[in-house]
Amino acid sequence: MNFLTYELNPFGGAVLDENSFPEDPAYFNKVLGDTITDFRTQGLQLVWMYLPLKLSPLIHTAVSQGFIYHHANEEGLQLILKLQPDAFVPGYATHYLGAGGVLIDEQNRILVIQEKHHTRRHYKLPGGALEPGEHIADAVVREVLEETGIKSEFISLNCFRHWHGYRYGMSDIYFVCRLKPLSSEITIETSEISEAHWMPLEEYLNHPDTHPFNRKIVTTTVNTPGLSLDQIEDYGTPESHEMFFASLD
Amino acid sequence: MNFLTYELNPFGGAVLDENSFPEDPAYFNKVLGDTITDFRTQGLQLVWMYLPLKLSPLIHTAVSQGFIYHHANEEGLQLILKLQPDAFVPGYATHYLGAGGVLIDEQNRILVIQEKHHTRRHYKLPGGALEPGEHIADAVVREVLEETGIKSEFISLNCFRHWHGYRYGMSDIYFVCRLKPLSSEITIETSEISEAHWMPLEEYLNHPDTHPFNRKIVTTTVNTPGLSLDQIEDYGTPESHEMFFASLD
Repeated sequence: MNFLTYELNPFGGAVLDENSFPEDPAYFNKVLGDTITDFRTQGLQLVWMYLPLKLSPLIHTAVSQGFIYHHANEEGLQLILKLQPDAFVPGYATHYLGAGGVLIDEQNRILVIQEKHHTRRHYKLPGGALEPGEHIADAVVREVLEETGIKSEFISLNCFRHWHGYRYGMSDIYFVCRLKPLSSEITIETSEISEAHWMPLEEYLNHPDTHPFNRKIVTTTVNTPGLSLDQIEDYGTPESHEMFFASLD
Repeated sequence: MNFLTYELNPFGGAVLDENSFPEDPAYFNKVLGDTITDFRTQGLQLVWMYLPLKLSPLIHTAVSQGFIYHHANEEGLQLILKLQPDAFVPGYATHYLGAGGVLIDEQNRILVIQEKHHTRRHYKLPGGALEPGEHIADAVVREVLEETGIKSEFISLNCFRHWHGYRYGMSDIYFVCRLKPLSSEITIETSEISEAHWMPLEEYLNHPDTHPFNRKIVTTTVNTPGLSLDQIEDYGTPESHEMFFASLD
């Protein structure tokens, strides 16, 4: 009897080696069935099968033997088969992250934008979504530059909103950061933004087109120190980790 | 000529209706090809195809016509086909979230745990990962209760660590929250925790088995007000949204 090649993990899981998979679905079906029978005899909990895009012809066979999907990206699909009903399966990522910037210039004016495709006219903060693997402090500076042409540097993270039921049913966090403007001339990104300008802070806070949420987050950001970036010796690297702490003094 | 049923979205995307898919892969292949040719003629940007688990036999056909995977869960697989090389494709969730709790009792003792499976002995904070759709403030209270049996209530969020390269290459955020203990008797969860106890805060901060990261996050949490929960009128619901603000007074 032939078996697929696999490795055991510390949680009673068998991780199949996709390099051992025969490309013929009928033969794959036979060997997979025999391998799963062997796993059940061994008392294993869970089977992991990763199929890169080019092995898509094998997905149907796996599903027919009880596998379900765990996650996928453009490279391939991860499937799992629970051998025990209460087997522990670690989840996949659940959240999107975005950040907006509060920039106040030396004349006490705030940088605001209007979106091109809006349902109601609102003065908003420049900002946007983090790219995969990007730091919050870098993302907000990048987004402000892309949307408005304004260079800035990160000062503090002052408040955030956590929201369930965003895109594909996942959750989303929107961090609001104080940034120090390093330039003043605006160049707007025209595909998503219709307007960007420096507006006197008092006018912004009292304007009918300022949403109460924006009024509150800007007021908080302007009047509180928030959390600052810091590092801990021997804990990750500045490239892989960013850490936000309230100031102790 | 037959076409698959679809809807257009505002971004030049065609969303195929999976209820219109013939189950025979050969016929599906023909109709899909004709439909894509029609989309190209229309100048569309992107095609979305969702295949629930039971339609797994059609995946290979889609891939053979150039579709790649976007994301998957146990219900099904979302595929996309870019008709223009620079078509905008919104990403999928990128982050895991977890939270730890700093609980100090009336005798100035902190609640700490030791993990059962550790590489080096460390006194850590109780806590764990958010469940999908769960609030941070609820998750940390739930995890502390599960791990130690201690009831508590959320006071503030005081610092956090953002880390790239966590599970499946995704990113992770660990929020540190101040909680008020509402009970004192410890009942430990024995599968992951080997030990939990109330330790004098001074001893904890000076103990050799306290990591510098934990020393810093606990010091920060104990000595700074952090961000508190608040709501904004007419902005989401307390069930779908939680919002963290620094106190203005």
